[in-house]
Amino acid sequence: MVQRTRLEDIGRLYPVHPNHESVIEDATLVIEEGNIAWVGPAREAPAPTPEETCRSLNGAIVTPGWVDSHTHLIWAGSRQHEFRQRLEGKTYLDIAKAGGGIMSTVREVRKASLEQLVEDGRKRLHRLLSFGVTAVEIKSGYGLSTDAEVKMLEAAKALGDSSPHTVATTFLGAHTVPTEHKAQRETYLDLICEEMIPLVAERGLAEACDVFVEEGAFSLEEARRVLETGKRFGLKPRVHADQLSPMGGAQLAASLGAASADHLEDIDEEGIQALADAGVVACMIPGSTFCLQQGKYAPARALLDAGVTLAIATDLNPGTTCSENLALIGSIAATQMRLTPLEVLHALTRGGACSLGRDDRLGSLAPGYQADLVVFDAPDIDYIFYHYGISHVSEVLIQGVCHYSASS
Amino acid sequence: MVQRTRLEDIGRLYPVHPNHESVIEDATLVIEEGNIAWVGPAREAPAPTPEETCRSLNGAIVTPGWVDSHTHLIWAGSRQHEFRQRLEGKTYLDIAKAGGGIMSTVREVRKASLEQLVEDGRKRLHRLLSFGVTAVEIKSGYGLSTDAEVKMLEAAKALGDSSPHTVATTFLGAHTVPTEHKAQRETYLDLICEEMIPLVAERGLAEACDVFVEEGAFSLEEARRVLETGKRFGLKPRVHADQLSPMGGAQLAASLGAASADHLEDIDEEGIQALADAGVVACMIPGSTFCLQQGKYAPARALLDAGVTLAIATDLNPGTTCSENLALIGSIAATQMRLTPLEVLHALTRGGACSLGRDDRLGSLAPGYQADLVVFDAPDIDYIFYHYGISHVSEVLIQGVCHYSASS
Repeated sequence: MVQRTRLEDIGRLYPVHPNHESVIEDATLVIEEGNIAWVGPAREAPAPTPEETCRSLNGAIVTPGWVDSHTHLIWAGSRQHEFRQRLEGKTYLDIAKAGGGIMSTVREVRKASLEQLVEDGRKRLHRLLSFGVTAVEIKSGYGLSTDAEVKMLEAAKALGDSSPHTVATTFLGAHTVPTEHKAQRETYLDLICEEMIPLVAERGLAEACDVFVEEGAFSLEEARRVLETGKRFGLKPRVHADQLSPMGGAQLAASLGAASADHLEDIDEEGIQALADAGVVACMIPGSTFCLQQGKYAPARALLDAGVTLAIATDLNPGTTCSENLALIGSIAATQMRLTPLEVLHALTRGGACSLGRDDRLGSLAPGYQADLVVFDAPDIDYIFYHYGISHVSEVLIQGVCHYSASS
Repeated sequence: MVQRTRLEDIGRLYPVHPNHESVIEDATLVIEEGNIAWVGPAREAPAPTPEETCRSLNGAIVTPGWVDSHTHLIWAGSRQHEFRQRLEGKTYLDIAKAGGGIMSTVREVRKASLEQLVEDGRKRLHRLLSFGVTAVEIKSGYGLSTDAEVKMLEAAKALGDSSPHTVATTFLGAHTVPTEHKAQRETYLDLICEEMIPLVAERGLAEACDVFVEEGAFSLEEARRVLETGKRFGLKPRVHADQLSPMGGAQLAASLGAASADHLEDIDEEGIQALADAGVVACMIPGSTFCLQQGKYAPARALLDAGVTLAIATDLNPGTTCSENLALIGSIAATQMRLTPLEVLHALTRGGACSLGRDDRLGSLAPGYQADLVVFDAPDIDYIFYHYGISHVSEVLIQGVCHYSASS
């Protein structure tokens, strides 16, 4: 028998789909076998079929499941002491010299068992779920050896296999040059291109390849080599671009037809136009600017005006921004980047799905889409970003099944 | 029989008291009849008395109960649409002309019943509790008529009487000049000074009197008249000072021996020195700057360097900053004002208690203090502000009794 569920008395439903209006008041949504069969105003809803289960949402609001399209969710150890040290006036260099920075997490991840990585990651994934996240991208990049990178991606895969979330994995071997290769960075790039990427691809451990393009990380030329190698092995390019300086990371992303260019705090006009022309999604990381007192947020309005699709992500990681509260990240985006609540919602749902190449199935509430949705105890979407730092989620459904309820 | 409870195996305890070190590792705390009888390292703890109940906190951390010393917690209606309008580019004036701003909340509060105000306030107070707040200041200021101001303060009093929190009430009739008095503001000041203050004092509805000193609100001279009248009736002065322009609100607060000067985003050097000399607590409202995209945070470091005691508060209100998550406000203070986690903790506990004149009983964990404390599931205080937007509270005790538990 076909399983059908009808959600009724939805106060406001936000389809976030180009073929629908931005909000439907007094909406009905019908789920069939984990997918959306019908969505629209209650007065236009088809008659219930005999086998349908009906549920009233008592005027609550419903959005698509949220898509967190940039995270480093798998890690071991914790770096709150570096947070303190930065506030005490230590520089990045001071911290790195004292053994801190990315390499301190790398040491912890190399020591950790696969099981430990999965267990710690599961807590973070559940916290993301409690804030409405139903799909998540997870990067490697704290292993920086073939074994440890594979271990991270296996942990991410294991999380995806054992949780209801959609999990998209990204190989980020080119996060930084690990200490043991600092003297001869070329040997590390060889390792990435000749050993890691082929192995990751062969074992189906990642669908994308990312590079941190930045002074002190990887140059444009190095990034191009890694990303082109990834492409040859079927990994879609993503780029950590123009975070601290306008190095042309966005242009590189555009020239490679990347799935996304991420960060972009320091993108220039040419970079914006390149992303627009190439149809590359711009993934904003406002939590990073917020935590690093970086001052500069990505020019979200200029990107939107140029026609670029925006995503907003947590960048969840132990070094620069550590929060699973994607709604709060949305509030930071609204208040600091001056995006409207509807623009933020788009970036948190359909924008994220676009960046993961899944906007045909995720990020919208329309027939044929996966029934991933969030029920909020709030009068409208404005309220969620206005009354900030608080979870307004009352329920999260993935493929039509409730996987989180605030009341239980 | 004397009731004694011993909390053992506290991983780190933060006394926040000048006579104690900043952190005690492996601590024990003994509560007797709602007060702290003993606190210190486990190895120095006195032998348990026969009637004592012992509980292990399994290595959790403990801080004093948090004191939110500036809120407008009693209101009716909601103004998320103004949040959206600001993001869409509307100015404060546009919004006020369309019937928004403080006066829209005033209209809702005047219509609301006392019971409704108490009920809505109770939800907010419980949310504050869930983030560790055990004492709270509540202002009137959305009534702006004698009846409605009295109704607000009665609601705040009723909340205090029926909840375990310490509730300190402040009369803020001089929040803005209400529409009906705009043409003749003097008549409104007469009403405040000749009718409201005497009545509020006579009925014991407030312990303090506050004025919003700002262009478009009240001048220094008007504020002085109101605050001096309040003082004559036994109400301690508090001042909304130097938020949008350096009008000399801090100097006014100092000259009146105010309990606190609040906001101070635009305080000048002279104002800082005046607060230091007069021993006035500076209450920071970083959530307001965050939400209003005001750009400028209060100069917390300069205030600290001058020897001013800092408090940090939510300013919980429906117009400018709407969040009960005081830990998040602490993260904003840390990252945007560059305060260290210990400085933030001090401002959230003892600093708030100082501003409420209750630092002999609240805001510290030392013998003789009320046993108001927060148990956090975190390794140290740094972690709470680093892993932001998430509640790390596992339990909140007021006068030794658990009133909030995350697991129930």
